Amino acid sequence: MSAPPYVLNFGAGPAKIPSSVLERAQSEMLNFDNSGMSVMELSHRSKTFGKILNGTKDKLKTLMDIPDNYEILFMQGGATTQFAAVFYNLVAAKQAKDGNHDEIFVDYLVSGAWSNKAAQEAERLAKNERSKITVNKVTDSKQQFGRYGNVAPADTWRFSDPAKTAYVYYCDNETVHGVEFQQVPQVDPRVPLVADVSSNFLSRPLDVRKYGVIYGGAQKNLGPAGVSIVIIRKDLLADLDVGPVRPLMLDFKTMADNESMYNTPPTFAIYMVGLVLDWLVEQGGLAQIEQRNIAKAKKLYDAIDNSPLYNCPVDPSCRSRMNVVFRLTSEALETKFLAGVSELNMVQLKGHRSVGGIRASIYNSMPEQDVDRLIAYMESFEQAHTEAAE
Amino acid sequence: MSAPPYVLNFGAGPAKIPSSVLERAQSEMLNFDNSGMSVMELSHRSKTFGKILNGTKDKLKTLMDIPDNYEILFMQGGATTQFAAVFYNLVAAKQAKDGNHDEIFVDYLVSGAWSNKAAQEAERLAKNERSKITVNKVTDSKQQFGRYGNVAPADTWRFSDPAKTAYVYYCDNETVHGVEFQQVPQVDPRVPLVADVSSNFLSRPLDVRKYGVIYGGAQKNLGPAGVSIVIIRKDLLADLDVGPVRPLMLDFKTMADNESMYNTPPTFAIYMVGLVLDWLVEQGGLAQIEQRNIAKAKKLYDAIDNSPLYNCPVDPSCRSRMNVVFRLTSEALETKFLAGVSELNMVQLKGHRSVGGIRASIYNSMPEQDVDRLIAYMESFEQAHTEAAE
Repeated sequence: MSAPPYVLNFGAGPAKIPSSVLERAQSEMLNFDNSGMSVMELSHRSKTFGKILNGTKDKLKTLMDIPDNYEILFMQGGATTQFAAVFYNLVAAKQAKDGNHDEIFVDYLVSGAWSNKAAQEAERLAKNERSKITVNKVTDSKQQFGRYGNVAPADTWRFSDPAKTAYVYYCDNETVHGVEFQQVPQVDPRVPLVADVSSNFLSRPLDVRKYGVIYGGAQKNLGPAGVSIVIIRKDLLADLDVGPVRPLMLDFKTMADNESMYNTPPTFAIYMVGLVLDWLVEQGGLAQIEQRNIAKAKKLYDAIDNSPLYNCPVDPSCRSRMNVVFRLTSEALETKFLAGVSELNMVQLKGHRSVGGIRASIYNSMPEQDVDRLIAYMESFEQAHTEAAE
Repeated sequence: MSAPPYVLNFGAGPAKIPSSVLERAQSEMLNFDNSGMSVMELSHRSKTFGKILNGTKDKLKTLMDIPDNYEILFMQGGATTQFAAVFYNLVAAKQAKDGNHDEIFVDYLVSGAWSNKAAQEAERLAKNERSKITVNKVTDSKQQFGRYGNVAPADTWRFSDPAKTAYVYYCDNETVHGVEFQQVPQVDPRVPLVADVSSNFLSRPLDVRKYGVIYGGAQKNLGPAGVSIVIIRKDLLADLDVGPVRPLMLDFKTMADNESMYNTPPTFAIYMVGLVLDWLVEQGGLAQIEQRNIAKAKKLYDAIDNSPLYNCPVDPSCRSRMNVVFRLTSEALETKFLAGVSELNMVQLKGHRSVGGIRASIYNSMPEQDVDRLIAYMESFEQAHTEAAE
């Protein structure tokens, strides 16, 4: 067999995984830690897997500086499952704390496709509740700007009455629209803040203490698809029989009480996350990774901004370091641009099907030289196509 | 490093995976199909992953002879998630078909821990519905026999009015209690039959046409933990806005309409299932596998029945071919028995923590010679301990 091509994987997720991580998984595939078994064959109740699970939690705790009053849960079903779980469990936590209000509010900052979907799921589920639960869009970029790509200033946000609000929800990085919050949204200290960090998880330090819940799927920065990590402040764990009736597997307290093993967890995916966390430590931790991510993103946005051919539809105040979206001056040129990348072994540069254009996802695992090669291609493409136009 | 020990893995799940499957996954770990990428790095929307997903479906369809009027779904969250999904979706299907009855019944055959948990989840969720939904235990082994380990004759089962019944549910193989149905339960043809086959999936041929829904987690006979397979008759797919309000990710029709990719599916786990299906084909398919499973189970039950030291608490009419549970004459001897197995590299022989005793799970992947070695140990243990007692 010929040597495999070196692929520059700009996929939005599942995404590139560091080669050293894959190599380690490969070498241990049939014999983990001299057990004679694959990680996939280990009982989730075995001591060997217990070490993997707890080790992964401990590494995450250290890397993110997660305080002791938070639980780390491993769940399944991706962010869309969490849309429902967050609604159910945090409304339950509010009701457990206060009893029934006449009306409870759940507040959403809508800055792109994913936070919008989360708000829609809450609206759908809220209709079924006996208590009145109102989904309030604190801000809605599409309504305010006609499209996603900007976030209105915080002083225009309309929060609900904090005494009656179960949570404020936002998506820290919108994978489809390339919009990332550069500060933690400021909310009333009585109200738990919930962040979907699926696509910028561990790409920068995060002050966990400011959050009630932080969650994300693994398949962008943390490993393979099939496991979600939920970090939740312990006082928000409500009993299953309080609040909205919810499937057992979506109940945070059941997960916490059973150390994420109420039933069989996705053992191999958790192991892979552990290996990625080891790699992150080797890279120098989150502060180091953040510096690299800043450098990679700056280069790419500069290349876009300094060209007449490319333009970024996202306001500079909220451009994602992870998902860099841009357009060319015509769709015909975009098609041509994308046709040219495949022979360079650059993959997954096409924008999300709902928005078109180009999207380069440059997660933690993406080396700076791959970004450089993309920029070199952009420059040569520009040269060829602006000369041709002259 | 020394050569790894050969381990005899009697785990109930996650369980042994055929070595050739693990070797193939290992060889392709960094470079699947000369893509230069790991399966874990492939976009779920890529053609390469599309081939894996559709190939896995096709193989399953052929192996199980699944008719065209069934959908195959890949979901997450294990059987416990399906407890809720089955309730939500099949009540919805009944309501979509008939409108609202005064009362709808959901019927459960309770033959062990798992079917009991499924019935409990339905009871909990039913309370939240505006329509009256009654969970009826058609039979309940614990109530009838004082403990699990038998199934009452079919002529004693008390079904609800078929015209008002959304489904009849049973667990085809009870992993904890070692109870397996040897025939398909006969139900009124108007009522969809639902089977949890998590622990005997693909261990024998199954007449799919007799079922409304067949589902199972992969981590026993099909690969790693983290993916569940749901086979559902298409006329049972109800619209999301009909019936019980349910999380989007638990909606069968949403999964079907999006080819199991409403969001990112557990791509690597699906790939592994595909490899296990290839292996099953190499073994000669389900009829062949069934013969081997019959032979392995018979040997082991014979060794138990022919000994004064061992006894099987499960009635011969419903003994599982997959999970062979047995007791010794005292708990002290059981402890001694389990202490002796580890030096022989036999693992996971301890019975489920809720029942104690010994459990040997002998899934498809377990070679007959491993069963032989277990029996040899049982015989030598018996010899040592009956001589000692004389």
